[in-house]
Amino acid sequence: MTRFALKLEYDGRGFVGWQRQSNGVSVQQVVEQAGAHLCGGAPPVTVAAGRTDAGVHAEGQVVQAEFPDGLTTRTVRDALNFHMRPHAVTVVAAGVISDESWSARFSAVAREYRYVILNRAARPALDAGFVWHVRRPLDAERMQLAAIALLGRHDFTSFRATACQARSPVRTLDRLDIGRRGDRIEIRVGARSFLHHQVRNIVGSLKLVGEEKWPVERIAAVLAARDRAAAGPTAPPDGLTLMSVAYPLDPFAGQQ
Amino acid sequence: MTRFALKLEYDGRGFVGWQRQSNGVSVQQVVEQAGAHLCGGAPPVTVAAGRTDAGVHAEGQVVQAEFPDGLTTRTVRDALNFHMRPHAVTVVAAGVISDESWSARFSAVAREYRYVILNRAARPALDAGFVWHVRRPLDAERMQLAAIALLGRHDFTSFRATACQARSPVRTLDRLDIGRRGDRIEIRVGARSFLHHQVRNIVGSLKLVGEEKWPVERIAAVLAARDRAAAGPTAPPDGLTLMSVAYPLDPFAGQQ
Repeated sequence: MTRFALKLEYDGRGFVGWQRQSNGVSVQQVVEQAGAHLCGGAPPVTVAAGRTDAGVHAEGQVVQAEFPDGLTTRTVRDALNFHMRPHAVTVVAAGVISDESWSARFSAVAREYRYVILNRAARPALDAGFVWHVRRPLDAERMQLAAIALLGRHDFTSFRATACQARSPVRTLDRLDIGRRGDRIEIRVGARSFLHHQVRNIVGSLKLVGEEKWPVERIAAVLAARDRAAAGPTAPPDGLTLMSVAYPLDPFAGQQ
Repeated sequence: MTRFALKLEYDGRGFVGWQRQSNGVSVQQVVEQAGAHLCGGAPPVTVAAGRTDAGVHAEGQVVQAEFPDGLTTRTVRDALNFHMRPHAVTVVAAGVISDESWSARFSAVAREYRYVILNRAARPALDAGFVWHVRRPLDAERMQLAAIALLGRHDFTSFRATACQARSPVRTLDRLDIGRRGDRIEIRVGARSFLHHQVRNIVGSLKLVGEEKWPVERIAAVLAARDRAAAGPTAPPDGLTLMSVAYPLDPFAGQQ
């Protein structure tokens, strides 16, 4: 068998998330069922870089799977795309992995998410399901100012889901950029890895700063509290997209 | 009665287009049925700046309608949005029109459309319905080079739908910019007004230049032929969005 890396794009609506679950269709199940057609009927085991929740989208999720030797990256990509129809999941690129120790999850050195808030009175018609619709005007500059306290290496217990299974609550945020374009506020977050709900919990708190319910300094105080109850509510999944995952060597180099 | 201008955003999928038709739900019908709630039951008559076709989207369609005196722009916007649910149409802004001669259609001095081609092997998962998926690699620079021949005032008979009812085939293209960002090719087209299918017919021909089926010079020859049969096929509606309509005075100035 040959190990492949797959770059996936998906619309998180209609999925229970990346991971297989008994209560609905997961992205993992769709990929593995399509993969079975390449593996003589037995579905391959896949591992993803980010276990996105229900309703969370991906432009650049990376997944590993093993397929019989001799298949080209193009065949793997096109065959999976054929068999995954009509689900809103697509393999954008495939790459052959020669390093046996490579893991889509553990070899990743950086992950980037984007969160979009639609900040206007009118509900979304074009972006429904892809934005958090916030009617009250938000001050994106205040949000950016507050966000600075979260950059770097910290104990993120306050922004971690109670169900989070990571051994350590310590993570290093490398990027947290907030900008407004018209009525869209885009938040870009980058780190080597994230805790469960970390991005959505950060956004839920920054929104309270943006609408001036919280002073700018409160974000630093919430972080220091190391208490989930100190932070704001979890922002909805709709606005969140896993944009990219980076590795020491690009698994898709030279692939279309 | 007071005349209002409405700025509309809509997802063209699921509509037979802007204009009322017997074979399905139109955007116009949804707006007028919602407007009836403000007019004591009788639906208002609406006129749109651009009569978008089935499957064509809008971020900034402008529509006129008359509502009883005394309603604020906020009430008109919020009430229409409430009653248009769950259709994927929303009033982004409303403005009061005091000039009795103002027409959403005839007072417009500029219209801008965007056409998006997704140019990659994998079918779209996130942008399905909002892009024209073209697998064969396109050379956007060739397309831009060819497009220059269309700028300015010309007889656009070659790029006009045979069903087009405009009296004159002469139009003035003020803008035709083509650029690539990753696997997306974005085409921006601006003019005071357009012929029926003009943008989609132009895109359908430029795509043939992009894939090198046609030489760059062929676009100028097609224009000179003044013959619909000389041009390429009509590009699908999915990739097309009416972005904005401009007037001598902004009807939404000062409105959110």
